Amino acid sequence: MERAKIRLFVEQPLGQGNSVPMTQPQANYLFNVMRLGVGDVVALFNGQDGEWTARVVDAAKRRGMVVCEQQTLPLQTPPDLWLLFAPIKKARTDFIVEKAAEMGAAKVFPVQTDYTNSDRIRQDKLQAHAIEAAEQCGGTYVPEVANIKKLSAMLDAWPEDRHLLFCDESMVGEPSRLQDLPQGPWAIVIGPEGGFSDRERDALRSHPNSHPISLGPRILRADTAAVAALALWQSALGDWA
Amino acid sequence: MERAKIRLFVEQPLGQGNSVPMTQPQANYLFNVMRLGVGDVVALFNGQDGEWTARVVDAAKRRGMVVCEQQTLPLQTPPDLWLLFAPIKKARTDFIVEKAAEMGAAKVFPVQTDYTNSDRIRQDKLQAHAIEAAEQCGGTYVPEVANIKKLSAMLDAWPEDRHLLFCDESMVGEPSRLQDLPQGPWAIVIGPEGGFSDRERDALRSHPNSHPISLGPRILRADTAAVAALALWQSALGDWA
Repeated sequence: MERAKIRLFVEQPLGQGNSVPMTQPQANYLFNVMRLGVGDVVALFNGQDGEWTARVVDAAKRRGMVVCEQQTLPLQTPPDLWLLFAPIKKARTDFIVEKAAEMGAAKVFPVQTDYTNSDRIRQDKLQAHAIEAAEQCGGTYVPEVANIKKLSAMLDAWPEDRHLLFCDESMVGEPSRLQDLPQGPWAIVIGPEGGFSDRERDALRSHPNSHPISLGPRILRADTAAVAALALWQSALGDWA
Repeated sequence: MERAKIRLFVEQPLGQGNSVPMTQPQANYLFNVMRLGVGDVVALFNGQDGEWTARVVDAAKRRGMVVCEQQTLPLQTPPDLWLLFAPIKKARTDFIVEKAAEMGAAKVFPVQTDYTNSDRIRQDKLQAHAIEAAEQCGGTYVPEVANIKKLSAMLDAWPEDRHLLFCDESMVGEPSRLQDLPQGPWAIVIGPEGGFSDRERDALRSHPNSHPISLGPRILRADTAAVAALALWQSALGDWA
């Protein structure tokens, strides 16, 4: 079977013989930029039906159409892991969402903290970053990016069974022990530039589901901390284990 | 003692009573941008003498002078860990060097591979990124960024005692086991976008010092892979352990 070089996320259901119309940006990318034509193949995924090979049947540069032929991967859902982070400068916020998708977070929550600069995000743009990252990394799943919420409100309504991996800057220098953590649904919480407020740190530390960890002896930027914590968690408890 | 909010890397030796002239960009930053004046304190490090508090004695906006008062941190050298990576797009190359400094690599080697796009780097600019990252992350050490070398040449002259953590994209989906790796000097090798060539993969796999590992079931971008591998290594064998 031909192996498609281009992967696209689509909204339509995928299955044997399904016709999938291309959006204008997708058609432009496939038929203008990448010069694909009728008979060429692409890989499609929609976050639900796995990955499918699809063949171009119409290469019109403003719409075009492909038809699903064969499933090449089943849906591979990531572990039940949330990433909570405080939005920072735009480039680094985009980056955190991209990394969350690559590293296999199931859901991403931008949260407002006492020291968060921005109280707004462009949820649609961040979701698009997650899609693009999934297209690149060969994933068949796209993490949902939630709208921004207050950290305090999330902690007050925290699901009883979800553990909380709290990356605590004030533990700088202590060992980063993830060996003995329990299985189950988890969330990683990364602080904003400037750290958490004392009130937030107390709430996070005293939360019954909380497991504070150190990320080494140097202070990490929020985006670095996100990737590092995701790697440690995936390797100890997730789908890298 | 006053706690300095600003950390600067300087070239001069640091010690009780040492006068340290500020470069023009440093003076501009301190006295124009941050509005410091005579009597204010900054933190200095030079990669060798730890961190020192220094007091401004001359706030001239084009030079200025500070005098060391007290050592606030000893020199904390990272573990003997190299990071080898293939330079990619500029923003991501800058990012990898920044992350190497934050995550505690001792030395960074940009390497040319069969699929590396660029055969040149701006070593001075990358070194400046490493310095800036060290200023931010509270480190007292700055990893040296080497000039670009051929990966094949480095492997041919590889130090006998240095283990090689080879992040092997073809192991996607296998567990990321770092538990049973030996202590000692190490190097992490991250491939370029597009992966290693077959020849390179064979050379890396068959190298007597090589320990191939998987970084999970999704294909990571080079910059993500660098942070993830550094986190796993630091947590298993390095100064996060």
